[in-house]
This record gives sequence, structure tokens and C-alpha cells, in this order.
Amino acid sequence: MGKPAVLLLSGGLDSATCGAIARREGHELYALSFDYGQRHRAELDAAARVAAQLGVRRHVTVPLDLRAFGGSALTAEIAVPKDRAASEMAEGIPITYVPARNTVFLSLALAYAEVSGAADIYIGVNAVDYSGYPDCRPEFIAAFEQLANLATKASVEGQLKFKIHTPLVNLTKAEIIRQGTSLGVDYGLTRSCYDLSDAGLSCGHCDSCLLRLKGFAEAGLTDPAPYQS
Amino acid sequence: MGKPAVLLLSGGLDSATCGAIARREGHELYALSFDYGQRHRAELDAAARVAAQLGVRRHVTVPLDLRAFGGSALTAEIAVPKDRAASEMAEGIPITYVPARNTVFLSLALAYAEVSGAADIYIGVNAVDYSGYPDCRPEFIAAFEQLANLATKASVEGQLKFKIHTPLVNLTKAEIIRQGTSLGVDYGLTRSCYDLSDAGLSCGHCDSCLLRLKGFAEAGLTDPAPYQS
Repeated sequence: MGKPAVLLLSGGLDSATCGAIARREGHELYALSFDYGQRHRAELDAAARVAAQLGVRRHVTVPLDLRAFGGSALTAEIAVPKDRAASEMAEGIPITYVPARNTVFLSLALAYAEVSGAADIYIGVNAVDYSGYPDCRPEFIAAFEQLANLATKASVEGQLKFKIHTPLVNLTKAEIIRQGTSLGVDYGLTRSCYDLSDAGLSCGHCDSCLLRLKGFAEAGLTDPAPYQS
Repeated sequence: MGKPAVLLLSGGLDSATCGAIARREGHELYALSFDYGQRHRAELDAAARVAAQLGVRRHVTVPLDLRAFGGSALTAEIAVPKDRAASEMAEGIPITYVPARNTVFLSLALAYAEVSGAADIYIGVNAVDYSGYPDCRPEFIAAFEQLANLATKASVEGQLKFKIHTPLVNLTKAEIIRQGTSLGVDYGLTRSCYDLSDAGLSCGHCDSCLLRLKGFAEAGLTDPAPYQS
């Protein structure tokens, strides 16, 4: 068995690919998902399927209701934008921004990593397609890594030197899909939609679906995940 | 009404004093507590009492079950040490250490602060009595503040410049109690015990009770909170 690593796993295309890369790099995976008031449980079902396919050692889902604070289309009752042009998506910070999301996710990943003896944390952030999210940028990740090494018993006592891995950060969606495909990721198990149906069908029209479908088209592949007709 | 500030509020002596200082500094308070698998609900009851006395604008309690990861006497079924000498407490990192606790707490405070339009976050950490906790040290707090200003829409777009306030960091317990008393904090409402009874009575023997009782003694005051006889 390889060195333990924590994987932030949403059940989407990016985190599934990130997990396959971590596994290729020889890690035994400790997957972490959040039940953070998602609109649909179907997203957690996707995470469970992907975890099983990756053969993770352990998969923990932490209930975390970010709706308590409000403030995002992904957690509150704000409409998810549909059928936007790429130029509109690229403008500023998306409405789907969740306040301090990756800071919260990484801090819980750090707790899980310390308990699991894992120095490595994998997160599938991307600064190409999601350039609008401040907490997907390399300078944010570098600052978190620095914080992590000051924050814990294991780092301060020298047992673990934490590293935050972002293997997708500079890849286009098409490059992510090609890499994942070569590593055997079954994208039919994954869901990326911001507005999934209860039955787990993607809408095909939100920013995330549009980016995903464009990525498959550019990669010359067909998305095996089911969409609402 | 003053500028909004987020207050991390446990219901203990330190966070109650920290809140009184934030209020004296003119802030309107947004209190944040965690229901993180505490052994006793009595701790949350204390937080609610203190929030009411402080006259906070809003008090959010986020369910956050850190027991999912295991690894601490405060969250798992490990015995809380009793009647230890100060010299024993000072050795290394306490068994009551919770992995990445303040990183997790501050990251959720950051989310709450962004949503509330609060640039200021108050946390009652102390590097004197709790020198063993890595995430109570000034260098940790400075690293978190740096991270916060890279992490959010509000900071990146220039609306909020986050500051993490730690007004107790260099005070002894006796100094904290004197300052809180002069600000009108009713310490009878607060609980600091690691092993509170269901009825909200402190044990008087855990590290936290011993530090608290020593603080009151050194301040020449009597602790008004109830103890198990």
C-alpha cells in the first residue's frame, strides 16, 4: 500500500480525475466529501460511486450546512444561470461562488489528513476554466499549504510536512478528460451539474455542464453521463 | 450600530471576554458557535447565554462533527486528564488537542464574515496558558489572515480587508478575568470545563478547570460558575 493521501471528492469530473492521478502517484486514498446542503443528493451518490471505483481506503462524508450563512446559488435559493456564453462565464466571480468554500474544504481535509497520517492532500481545482474563483488560484493554494504546516501537531512536531497537490490547476477541461480517460476514469459515474435532477440527470445548460460538454467535444469524446433530454 | 465583526464563541471564559472587548471596540457582533460533537450540550447552552448577554446581532451554530475523523479527547472517547500539575500541562501538545481545530473554525468564521460584510474576526486564542496548541500561536494567526485575504471574493475585489483579532493572546488567565470583569462580563454564564455534566456543572479537575480556578484565585476573585461538589 502506498503513502496515505486525502482526496477532496465531489463526485464531479475534476475530482475523479484528481483521484486517478493521486492513485497513479502511488497513494492510498482517504476520500472526503461534504454534505453541504447540496440541492441534490445525487451529487453525493456520484461521489460514492467514484470512491468505489478508485478503491479508496476510507470515504468520509462530513455534514456541513453552508446554507446557515447564505450567499450563493449553490447553497441558497438563487437560480443557477443557464446557457451563458463562455464570455459571460469569464466575467468576474461567478454567482455560483460559495464564500470561503475551498478554505473550509481544505481545513477539514487537513484535520482528516492529520488523523490519517497523510502528508498529501489532493484537490482538483482549476485556474483555467474557473479563473473567477479566488480560492482556485495557485497563490491561494500556496498560502494554505504554508498555513497547514503551522497549524497542526503533526507538522509542528515534524511527523508530517503537508503538501497540497493541484494536478489539474493548469489544464483545460479537454486535457483533464484526456488524462482521466487514459487513467481509466469512468466519467459515466461522475456528475458536474449545478442543477442535477433527483434522478441524477444533468441539466446540460448550467455553466458547469456547458464547460464539461465543451471539454468532451474538444477532446473528441462523448460524455457518457446521462443528461435530461 | 458599529462595524460588523464575527466572534468565535464557545461559551467559555476566553471567548466571552473576547466578545466584550470586540463590543467595546464598537463592533456589532455576529457570533459563531459549533456543535462539533461536544460531550455535553451544556457547552452550547453557555454559548447561547453569553451571546444574549453580549447583545449580538446574530448567533449561528454550525453542526460540525469532527468525531468523523477521530483523534482527540474532546471529540472521541478518550479520557480527559484530571488534576494534572501545571508542569505536566505545559509539556508538549495536550491530549485535548483537536486536529486543525482553529483552522476549521477560522475558515467557517471567514465564510460567515464574508456573507455578513464583516472585515473583522475575533478569536479568543491564548498563547500563554495554552502554549502547547500550534493553532493558538501568533504565526498561525498571521498566516490565516494572509490566507483569508487571498481566499474570498470580498477580499480579492477589495470590499473587505480581513483582520483576525486575538486580544487575549498574550494575557494570563488572571489578566483576562480582570479585563472581562471590568467590561461587565458575567462569568457565571460561562463554562470552560472539558468534562461538563449534563446539568452544566464543571468538574473542577480537568486542565481547563484548573487553569480557570487558578486564574480567578490570582485575580483575587471567586468564580461564580457552578462546580460539581
